[in-house]
Amino acid sequence: MAGDTTITVIGNLTDDPELRFTPSGAAVAKFRVASTPRFMDKASGEWKDGEPLFLSCTVWRQAAENVAESLQRGARVIVSGRLRQRSYETREGEKRTVIELEVDEIGPSLRYATAKVQKMSRSGGGGGFGGGGQGGGGNFDDPWASAAPAPSRGGSGGGNFDEEPPF
Amino acid sequence: MAGDTTITVIGNLTDDPELRFTPSGAAVAKFRVASTPRFMDKASGEWKDGEPLFLSCTVWRQAAENVAESLQRGARVIVSGRLRQRSYETREGEKRTVIELEVDEIGPSLRYATAKVQKMSRSGGGGGFGGGGQGGGGNFDDPWASAAPAPSRGGSGGGNFDEEPPF
Amino acid sequence: MAGDTTITVIGNLTDDPELRFTPSGAAVAKFRVASTPRFMDKASGEWKDGEPLFLSCTVWRQAAENVAESLQRGARVIVSGRLRQRSYETREGEKRTVIELEVDEIGPSLRYATAKVQKMSRSGGGGGFGGGGQGGGGNFDDPWASAAPAPSRGGSGGGNFDEEPPF
Amino acid sequence: MAGDTTITVIGNLTDDPELRFTPSGAAVAKFRVASTPRFMDKASGEWKDGEPLFLSCTVWRQAAENVAESLQRGARVIVSGRLRQRSYETREGEKRTVIELEVDEIGPSLRYATAKVQKMSRSGGGGGFGGGGQGGGGNFDDPWASAAPAPSRGGSGGGNFDEEPPF
Repeated sequence: MAGDTTITVIGNLTDDPELRFTPSGAAVAKFRVASTPRFMDKASGEWKDGEPLFLSCTVWRQAAENVAESLQRGARVIVSGRLRQRSYETREGEKRTVIELEVDEIGPSLRYATAKVQKMSRSGGGGGFGGGGQGGGGNFDDPWASAAPAPSRGGSGGGNFDEEPPF
Repeated sequence: MAGDTTITVIGNLTDDPELRFTPSGAAVAKFRVASTPRFMDKASGEWKDGEPLFLSCTVWRQAAENVAESLQRGARVIVSGRLRQRSYETREGEKRTVIELEVDEIGPSLRYATAKVQKMSRSGGGGGFGGGGQGGGGNFDDPWASAAPAPSRGGSGGGNFDEEPPF
Repeated sequence: MAGDTTITVIGNLTDDPELRFTPSGAAVAKFRVASTPRFMDKASGEWKDGEPLFLSCTVWRQAAENVAESLQRGARVIVSGRLRQRSYETREGEKRTVIELEVDEIGPSLRYATAKVQKMSRSGGGGGFGGGGQGGGGNFDDPWASAAPAPSRGGSGGGNFDEEPPF
Repeated sequence: MAGDTTITVIGNLTDDPELRFTPSGAAVAKFRVASTPRFMDKASGEWKDGEPLFLSCTVWRQAAENVAESLQRGARVIVSGRLRQRSYETREGEKRTVIELEVDEIGPSLRYATAKVQKMSRSGGGGGFGGGGQGGGGNFDDPWASAAPAPSRGGSGGGNFDEEPPF
């Protein structure tokens, strides 16, 4: 891909990552990052929080499994990826558009934390750099798109992926 | 501001920029940039267009006036700024959130064009670097926010700013 | 190219761009950008200039010609590209390494200037997005590398490209 | 700081990070990241490694200690920071300039690894966002600058920081 709009976001996970698998077996994880800028308040002379930015993120394959295993709600992360625009229709038939992040690389920030890193054996799967980018092509095989029957996920209401279209 | 999510977007203006002034006289321009990535299609061996990304942009002060004077619909631009999330309510009382770009710097791309550059005298206004950033604070003085009377939607006359809430 | 280290630099040209052509006729321009950060000096309560960053930039093909025609020393620009490391030997046989910018997109900033944009007809050449990136491959055909005998460039001292290896 | 040239680099540590402390007790760690782009070789139809980019990085305070504790040579990392230019004189009295990275945020990549994250209690120190940026001001208190006696180059004992001026 050339001409992608790349971006780096630093923020905190608003929830635990959700891990799913496509029918063909590819892992994909989704999560949302809240990034809060800070500004110097001239009146008080103190740093204050600005409006947070919430960005929905998708990560594919081995990285998706690693994310699901390594990161929990609240974790501070550095995320690098490409902005994507996605259109969908609400149940009322209204068309909506959201901007999301297709993740190329993600890691826990070491600003306020340490990390014990465990390398995975790169058995099997292709990968190598750029693999993630191509993973974007996996959209045609989106496990979230197919989630129609909404299997109960350890609970009653289930299917929360359907209920949150912009996810 | 520290911790802002900065981004550079390369794309084309979908329309002529809209220039307005706040009650206090500050210029602000809005426009939308369409950025289209390209990918190598393995089947045909050719580059093809991917899904475009549309990003609404706001630029303040002298730069706003310069943008309005220099750029037209279709112009290819490089835009650098900070992602902002904005929430608003539709006329039906539904809450929506959009992600937009607060522009720090913008220029016409020289990839397929030449440009005759004319420096402005920096009379009066503050400015200097960072001025644009602070301009973001100009939100409290938003000329778009003040378009109060809210003319009938789908109606005849003007007020096209009201008709496109996410702008 | 995947995994490139991309970057956006905002600054001013330290000199007029230098335009050359490869033996095969491809245009290439070089120039240097000085980017000066600013910081709030707490003692004086004023913004002050920090240490400038100087970055050597290379741009290829049509964009190179457009840059040479449109930009002069002092011009404020937005430059987007990929960091490249280049090694060379000094006349004393010492090995040096420099970091430079392979430009993908550049434009004059509209912060303090207006611009009259003139679209070029895209006759002939390939181009399209990504063309610039591939242009990077043009290194094997580097007009600066071949400048060995140092022909006088309209003057006595000449050959300043040889004298400034890191250029 | 406004107008800094920010950048995100993804690559591997070329060595274990070096941790030092300023006379006033602030931690600072240095390390080098090698980032290798990949390109599609048209002849073979395979991805191949391009020229690696080596970038020297400095990180301050708590994050420096966390880096030293969490990352080893070879670790794949995501690093976000600001490009800085540093000038120095060689022992031969020659002036040199290098471009380095002042790190704002760093983490181990989860592309090929998992991580057990351990939050540090934020006792004492300033911190908060932007703290790292201000840490850059810590330059006046540079533990590397103070390595004065300059032991014989190429000599036996320690002082390896002196032996690599550009670090």
